[in-house]
Amino acid sequence: MDTTVTLGMVLEARERLKKVVRRTDLVPYRVLGVPGKNEIFIKTENLQHTGAFKLRGAYNKIAQLTEEERAHGVIASSAGNHAQGVALAASMFGVKATIVMPEGAPLAKIAATRAYGAEVVLSGLVYDDAYQKAMELQQETGAVFVHPFNDPQVIAGQGSLGLEIMDDEPDIGTVVVPIGGGGLISGIAVAIKSLWPNVKIIGVQAAGAPSMQQSLREGHPITLSSAHTIADGIAVKTPGDLTYELCQKYVDEVVTVDEDEICNAILTLLEKCKIVAEGAGAVSVAALLHNKFKAEGKIACLVSGGNIDVTTLQRILDKGLMKAGRLAQVCTLIEDRPGRLHRLLAVVSDSGANVVSIRHDRTNMESGIGMAMLELTLETHNQQHLDQVLATMEQNGYRIISH
Amino acid sequence: MDTTVTLGMVLEARERLKKVVRRTDLVPYRVLGVPGKNEIFIKTENLQHTGAFKLRGAYNKIAQLTEEERAHGVIASSAGNHAQGVALAASMFGVKATIVMPEGAPLAKIAATRAYGAEVVLSGLVYDDAYQKAMELQQETGAVFVHPFNDPQVIAGQGSLGLEIMDDEPDIGTVVVPIGGGGLISGIAVAIKSLWPNVKIIGVQAAGAPSMQQSLREGHPITLSSAHTIADGIAVKTPGDLTYELCQKYVDEVVTVDEDEICNAILTLLEKCKIVAEGAGAVSVAALLHNKFKAEGKIACLVSGGNIDVTTLQRILDKGLMKAGRLAQVCTLIEDRPGRLHRLLAVVSDSGANVVSIRHDRTNMESGIGMAMLELTLETHNQQHLDQVLATMEQNGYRIISH
Repeated sequence: MDTTVTLGMVLEARERLKKVVRRTDLVPYRVLGVPGKNEIFIKTENLQHTGAFKLRGAYNKIAQLTEEERAHGVIASSAGNHAQGVALAASMFGVKATIVMPEGAPLAKIAATRAYGAEVVLSGLVYDDAYQKAMELQQETGAVFVHPFNDPQVIAGQGSLGLEIMDDEPDIGTVVVPIGGGGLISGIAVAIKSLWPNVKIIGVQAAGAPSMQQSLREGHPITLSSAHTIADGIAVKTPGDLTYELCQKYVDEVVTVDEDEICNAILTLLEKCKIVAEGAGAVSVAALLHNKFKAEGKIACLVSGGNIDVTTLQRILDKGLMKAGRLAQVCTLIEDRPGRLHRLLAVVSDSGANVVSIRHDRTNMESGIGMAMLELTLETHNQQHLDQVLATMEQNGYRIISH
Repeated sequence: MDTTVTLGMVLEARERLKKVVRRTDLVPYRVLGVPGKNEIFIKTENLQHTGAFKLRGAYNKIAQLTEEERAHGVIASSAGNHAQGVALAASMFGVKATIVMPEGAPLAKIAATRAYGAEVVLSGLVYDDAYQKAMELQQETGAVFVHPFNDPQVIAGQGSLGLEIMDDEPDIGTVVVPIGGGGLISGIAVAIKSLWPNVKIIGVQAAGAPSMQQSLREGHPITLSSAHTIADGIAVKTPGDLTYELCQKYVDEVVTVDEDEICNAILTLLEKCKIVAEGAGAVSVAALLHNKFKAEGKIACLVSGGNIDVTTLQRILDKGLMKAGRLAQVCTLIEDRPGRLHRLLAVVSDSGANVVSIRHDRTNMESGIGMAMLELTLETHNQQHLDQVLATMEQNGYRIISH
């Protein structure tokens, strides 16, 4: 087995993948840019089959197994996108796939993985448990383990994305890519730096799981004690040794984004770009929107996946709207007498805010006898408008207890 | 002025638009189809500049005005996508645009229209008022009125979408298109039926605003007494006379979808296809998902726009999740004593439901002394699972008051 990744391997992967993966669109978005500054493009890999890029690497890996290896089947452990990528790729070759997922994996992802024909084994509570179980099963069955990132052929498969971006828009000067274990950016960086050495490659991690950034700073792969972020697809504690080496060689800079910045990017992609991104997929755009790097030329941000639960998405949208001053929960007190609620609502509505919901609680501790606690959920235009609404309420004698 | 639309006009429009509009991707979606049945493609016109197809028709119209006409500027009335399309197209020619919008138009759409350089005049409460005001201003200023649908050059511009679909996937056998005033489908139908007469053209309206469907049934354009639907972009009371004629000649069938079906389509597009559609843009997919027509060959569904308020989207997602049995509000009664709430939550969580929120109200009328009303918001896997959860609650002695 090769222990590194070459341009040739990525070029071969692209040929193998041509009839299999969707060549996702590189969409120009004026709404994300500032007139007269760098043009911005989104590589919409969230619209890939299975909703993420993982099919590329998995297919490229399985395509190169021998007949004998294929006869033993493949095995992988994953709580998310890699599970579906391996399952779909294996089904394309008629190869049996066993995917070990932690018991807490979202039901929708388990169902999707089964729908692609894989046998799903639920084991343990977190990814590491599932990984251990996969290793045991691999020993028993002799199946080929498909690593989610630290594998030359998996990396070469993901690298096909870099070639597609540059083919579609040869003037790209900066490519921005999410980093979890580092497989995606490694493949892209090998391909692009080999052919277009002046293109800047920026990696983005969640501030809650900066394993590659810290590894590069310390000069060797490190293991984080914890990795917590809503960008669960890139919550990786230890990068691969191979991906670490490739990032050290080819990636210009790794930056981080915090949870609020990720939520804001998901909201922006939904509202302005009309696409759904999961947290891991949106970190590239978060880094762009929050000026985490210095760009050169046209910018391509890779949105690597869109597999997010609708209920999670709704919570993130709420958070993003609140952060932007467009949704607010405001607590105040009113006298517990007829007409008082009506009067308050008149004040609020005259200020241009839209009342989403009202909770009226006369038994609240803080409110005292004769007073009632009122919690209003309000829609406002922006932070400035919200501040005006709150000021108007205070001018009319309503004490703002919290907001 | 031409009073009809020809294939030649659409072909010309395509050339004019090449450098201006984004050639949106025609994306194959296995997840929408049934294995072995018709392949399904989405024309992602929601990813167009301004978030909808309207730029095409507006640009094609303004491109053909004389210098003198352009000097007087253009005027349009719209509460939504047409406003932004005309504003952007006019700005590309350096032509002054005046857009009359009803006072209730969403702030985000007003801001977007202004951002494209148009002068926005707010007038009246509904579209018809804004239209009247636009007519008055047109008389005063001599500006060219850009009709949202009943104009040959506007129709020819929208028709470019039909050519793009067939170029990308020549085996398409059925094209499914939303209908409001009928401009979009007229252009597409003229182009496709002229070159590929065997391709079926299916139009889709909201059941709450079936003006074109009724007009075709009655043999002449009719006016609905009301038009109410969450697909506000196609809530049109009267189709154009020109669009009526073209639909009569070229459209195979017009079907309708109800509000629940539209919500479900928006949810499906978000969750499975990772794209954001507004109600009007999703009706094509709603018709597909709910078997409203008999398809031939590969199916292309046009998702015409994605301009939906985030807060509206959230309400629609809630509705869609509730309809699918994945989110439920369940009211029950518990004894108002320590430990009782804990016991109920154990029953609920053992049944596999996830508690999103709890409202506990001991002052509720229905609950009586010593009892408290409990409203649980639950996440469940599907309708069958929700039914099981409710049954388990009842078996454990909890009366379900409502759900």
